[in-house]
Amino acid sequence: MTQPVAMTEVWRGPFLESIHLGHAVICDDTGQIVRSWGDPNALIYPRSSCKMVQALPLVTSGAAAKYGLGPEHLALACASHSGAAIHTDRVSAWLHHLGLHDDDFRCGPQEPSDMAARDGLILADVRPCQMHNNCSGKHAGFLTLAQHMGAGPEYIEIDHPVQQACRAAFEEVTGESSPGYGIDGCSAPNFATSLLGLARSMAWFASAADRSDRQSTAAEQLTAAMIKHPELVAGEGRACTELMRAMDGRAAIKTGAEAVFVAIIPEKRVGVALKIADGATRASECAIAAILVGLGVLDADHPATRKFMNAPIHSRRGIDCGSIRPTQDLLAPL
Amino acid sequence: MTQPVAMTEVWRGPFLESIHLGHAVICDDTGQIVRSWGDPNALIYPRSSCKMVQALPLVTSGAAAKYGLGPEHLALACASHSGAAIHTDRVSAWLHHLGLHDDDFRCGPQEPSDMAARDGLILADVRPCQMHNNCSGKHAGFLTLAQHMGAGPEYIEIDHPVQQACRAAFEEVTGESSPGYGIDGCSAPNFATSLLGLARSMAWFASAADRSDRQSTAAEQLTAAMIKHPELVAGEGRACTELMRAMDGRAAIKTGAEAVFVAIIPEKRVGVALKIADGATRASECAIAAILVGLGVLDADHPATRKFMNAPIHSRRGIDCGSIRPTQDLLAPL
Repeated sequence: MTQPVAMTEVWRGPFLESIHLGHAVICDDTGQIVRSWGDPNALIYPRSSCKMVQALPLVTSGAAAKYGLGPEHLALACASHSGAAIHTDRVSAWLHHLGLHDDDFRCGPQEPSDMAARDGLILADVRPCQMHNNCSGKHAGFLTLAQHMGAGPEYIEIDHPVQQACRAAFEEVTGESSPGYGIDGCSAPNFATSLLGLARSMAWFASAADRSDRQSTAAEQLTAAMIKHPELVAGEGRACTELMRAMDGRAAIKTGAEAVFVAIIPEKRVGVALKIADGATRASECAIAAILVGLGVLDADHPATRKFMNAPIHSRRGIDCGSIRPTQDLLAPL
Repeated sequence: MTQPVAMTEVWRGPFLESIHLGHAVICDDTGQIVRSWGDPNALIYPRSSCKMVQALPLVTSGAAAKYGLGPEHLALACASHSGAAIHTDRVSAWLHHLGLHDDDFRCGPQEPSDMAARDGLILADVRPCQMHNNCSGKHAGFLTLAQHMGAGPEYIEIDHPVQQACRAAFEEVTGESSPGYGIDGCSAPNFATSLLGLARSMAWFASAADRSDRQSTAAEQLTAAMIKHPELVAGEGRACTELMRAMDGRAAIKTGAEAVFVAIIPEKRVGVALKIADGATRASECAIAAILVGLGVLDADHPATRKFMNAPIHSRRGIDCGSIRPTQDLLAPL
């Protein structure tokens, strides 16, 4: 097994303070590796980075069309949102449209990462609900599919038709049979894959417009929804939202817990998947930005790029203390 | 240079999801290595793990005695506290006793990590002050020493007498001349050292009772203060507080940002210092607990040990998803 390689350095004053190692793969639409760092065969949990894959059955089943879901709904199904009003208002309306309530979710409650929403709940003395969970859009998609299928309410059980449909879609687009699953923070199953399998699935999304099968058409719709609504995929100030805006429609990207990041780049027909071995999000954000710069789809001088690829470290009085930087190897153009 | 070694594993379901590498040293009171993992000569910033060293001049100068500082003040000078009322009430009274105000601090404001204090500020529509900064006890110590010395108000400047005194004490107890410094999150200088130097300084603290010089007497007082007031050194639910309580006076321990952890074990006359290379606190907490168990001063079956050494990972609905575990090598008894 190839060891992970240095991807992100944390500098403070004159010295390297911390370092993050990882694996990354860029894959083309024939499933071939364009470039890799570390071990392309590293076994990973994609976590939330594969939400667009988990959303495929929602579209291919006809459920999305039947329930009138538009790009905003599909973007939320692919989102790890901040629990801001723009997210929870839409998820709440979606749930209402299904004739369901917050108690029908199985994702569990979560305090919003959006500060205004968080403070609003505290001021109103209201505890966070399940719709505040960053995965509530994905779960609204699961509930929609379950209703469409006439399946039972425990939609996160491994043998529930919704999860079986997710597994089938996941194995089809990664081109691998998953060796097993873990339970995600939102209590849904998360299927393991090789990093290459995940990159392959993203390249398959990137080239979906070249094909006319039902699965590819769904992939194209989901990618378009993410690109149209970067503010729904994450939230103000966050990497997915800001970097997608900076690329102005050239790519869809998605973070996952424990430092997974993926990118779908339709104009190049390539997919990217990376995993920082220690699970640090600050490093995966820096690394994906560097790879996107290397691929020529993200401007190195854009303020969003500087924010995530060379994040300054400030003291609590605003003094410049250091920065989080990609390694040179990661930055080299293809 | 020796590479860092695997110290902490993050398991989810059947697979290893993330892994943390690091360096650690156990040092005796003659400055010899008892045991090490990775590179004892790794250059690190100790960050907040060396607050008891930064507090030495406060005591040796006579300032602590002159201003009537007791064990609670000294524990707070060594603390990275949660900003709970038990911390800020005491820091505020200390500042008042000096005839100073929050504006005299140079640590910058920080939202309390203590939930009740955080929510209290939001409900009162009050922004966090500098006394809420986790380092405000250390800074109250700096201000006390500055006043005692008759030195100027910019006590965090590198050439200020307070910082020069800190540097001298740091180099004396680490037994090394520091190659340089970085600026910490609280805007104070933080001097670099080898990990061995930091462990050596902790062994020197551990054996302070054997000596009668002024510096050693101060070290003994500071260690005793930390052991007497674990609730002031961190806060409810946190590793320093809970693990010190679990050891019932047998050791003083202290965390530092970017995954540094130290331990002072007077009964064994040894010091411990560790650094997780990627800077993850979840891993440094797990690793220090494992080393303390190996040293025989922490009970492997204590609830606090289980909480930090084998931290369960739960979904937001409380489902058991995995755990954070030390590697076998770290757990092996000496």
